Amino acid sequence: MADQYAQSGEDKRPAEIPAIRWEEPPEGPVLVLLDQTRLPAEEVELVCTDAPALVEAIRSLAVRGAPLLGIAGAYGVALAAARGFDVDEAAAALESARPTAVNLSIGVHRAASAHRTALATTGDPTAAATAALAAARTMHQEDAEASARMAVHGLTLLDELLPGGGHRVLTHCNSGSLVSGGEGTAFAVALAAHRAGRLRRLWVDETRPLLQGARLTAYEAARRGMAYTLLTDSAAGSLFAAGEVDAVLVGADRIAADGSVANKVGSYPLAVLARYHHVPFIVVAPVTTVDPGTSDGSSIEVEQRPGYEVTDVLAPQMPVAGAGGGIAVAPLGTQAYNPAFDVTPPELVTAIVTEEGVVSPVTAEALAELCSRSRQVTPG
Amino acid sequence: MADQYAQSGEDKRPAEIPAIRWEEPPEGPVLVLLDQTRLPAEEVELVCTDAPALVEAIRSLAVRGAPLLGIAGAYGVALAAARGFDVDEAAAALESARPTAVNLSIGVHRAASAHRTALATTGDPTAAATAALAAARTMHQEDAEASARMAVHGLTLLDELLPGGGHRVLTHCNSGSLVSGGEGTAFAVALAAHRAGRLRRLWVDETRPLLQGARLTAYEAARRGMAYTLLTDSAAGSLFAAGEVDAVLVGADRIAADGSVANKVGSYPLAVLARYHHVPFIVVAPVTTVDPGTSDGSSIEVEQRPGYEVTDVLAPQMPVAGAGGGIAVAPLGTQAYNPAFDVTPPELVTAIVTEEGVVSPVTAEALAELCSRSRQVTPG
Repeated sequence: MADQYAQSGEDKRPAEIPAIRWEEPPEGPVLVLLDQTRLPAEEVELVCTDAPALVEAIRSLAVRGAPLLGIAGAYGVALAAARGFDVDEAAAALESARPTAVNLSIGVHRAASAHRTALATTGDPTAAATAALAAARTMHQEDAEASARMAVHGLTLLDELLPGGGHRVLTHCNSGSLVSGGEGTAFAVALAAHRAGRLRRLWVDETRPLLQGARLTAYEAARRGMAYTLLTDSAAGSLFAAGEVDAVLVGADRIAADGSVANKVGSYPLAVLARYHHVPFIVVAPVTTVDPGTSDGSSIEVEQRPGYEVTDVLAPQMPVAGAGGGIAVAPLGTQAYNPAFDVTPPELVTAIVTEEGVVSPVTAEALAELCSRSRQVTPG
Repeated sequence: MADQYAQSGEDKRPAEIPAIRWEEPPEGPVLVLLDQTRLPAEEVELVCTDAPALVEAIRSLAVRGAPLLGIAGAYGVALAAARGFDVDEAAAALESARPTAVNLSIGVHRAASAHRTALATTGDPTAAATAALAAARTMHQEDAEASARMAVHGLTLLDELLPGGGHRVLTHCNSGSLVSGGEGTAFAVALAAHRAGRLRRLWVDETRPLLQGARLTAYEAARRGMAYTLLTDSAAGSLFAAGEVDAVLVGADRIAADGSVANKVGSYPLAVLARYHHVPFIVVAPVTTVDPGTSDGSSIEVEQRPGYEVTDVLAPQMPVAGAGGGIAVAPLGTQAYNPAFDVTPPELVTAIVTEEGVVSPVTAEALAELCSRSRQVTPG
């Protein structure tokens, strides 16, 4: 029923703590999450024994990031089924935990649909629970495989664009294993370069206002032993001017049909700086990020987030989901402009790297071709 | 001897609290500072009765900003003289309070020199103390007048560049009355536009890592009743893209002979964004900021500040002068790149506004001509 925090003693700590894992101890199946609200100060695992606990974890941002939320939602349905709870009720609660997270809804539907089909076919709740879990695991594995393929394509592209090796890569926000079933998107490419001995430096934008770069990307880079350096978002300009950036690698929240890229606020200024300094600006995202229903950048609705994220300073231990909690830095009553993301037009994007291949130059035709190829390769 | 905090009851609060003022209560002369380390949470005045108290206030950043430090240094010498302390000793202590602040040194020398000359001429310590105070007051007044003239020139330029009126101005860092004997540089121009009814919006960059925009510029704008909105530094890109910025106004720490402008880190990315969006990028600074001894941007040495300013979050109440104090947001051991300022090349600067007039386009010849004119007008 209630959440419980597992012990995370230094001695028992695994080399890598997955963002999400399914476990089946004798007491019954559980979903174990790395609590991202406590990173990087503490590595604490959160054990969910039912859907309400997972809903709470999603709401508090203990688990976050579009692909990972989809996987979590699917496992949440499987958990409810395996523990004998009402699956429809669990699915509804999970889906509404963060209403704007479309991946969460997709994941919940996928597992719930597998459960419903199996139950209708076999009439056996255990077989239906197994089907839901299989759907969640498939989703998890597909995401990990997509990450791995993006990393391969991305590193090949980096090597082509920068034949000298010793890449110095600037990244923004968090796009690694904390948002993915695998090693992520843009971060996965940097990690592949690191493993190949060709990453000279990962420049990590702190990513105001929520500091996902300082808190999460720096954590992942430190964990992997990568050569990384943190900077304020506006210090990136000095790095470009000093010739210290060979490429920019970012993820994407949504890609319009024309190749416009919505990503964490601060990505667009990097794209403009990259263009001014003749540095490649590379977007890494799975094909599912491309939304053919959004024709261009101006059709993307930009979410405005609460002003207190800017007017107050939020420490890692403090939840970011509710007002208050932080320390006020601006005068009381200060109004803030706080868009969640910005839109980079296709002419500033050197390449879009997906699991199905690379689009460069970025055109509506090339993107459409890639998407149709993807639909043929991986149906449903 | 010791500092003492004056009461700042809401009812007794003056309409505007000056950053620095000289008072002569019956107990003897004092220098009263608005303690900037406690803004905007609290408006507290710090009363200095001797030079060591002022040295401590300078070190703790209770008083800061190049022109204001010069004025404070001059008053500090006058205070030592008026209270009968050793003036040379006080001057030496004040000058070394922040070794890299050249204005501080200039102010100290100016008052000490006036004191020395008067003492040599009259042999009367009281007359010498009066001379030191007169030098400090002259410096204070000159700075206020320079601010006023920059505001006039700057507003005229804004009106020329943007004939429609209703200016939407983006600014970075703090360049108002908290760094000046008057109303500042870039901020003074925005304030003049506000008073003329032609400021539609002041966009205030929070200015990481020390948040001078969120803490100090927002405070000044709120105090003056200006229409202002705070944003993270990297959200400026979205404003430009939305066509919400008519002009960028920033101050300068130093201007090289070729017109390269060193200013708070984050200014250069704004200049690049402004160019990309065809928005004027205007630098406002007194003529003394132009350093003929620095030939170009590459000759400007960029101060690297401690990494903990980036890896830790510092709340307003915490002193920023020493390590520790803050809340760690990045993993322990994280290295940070933290340049204090960046350099904008002259080709990205639409105009440099000084108290002697406007240079536009920005060329070495035009700057040299302005500086020589200034030296003729205001000798010494």
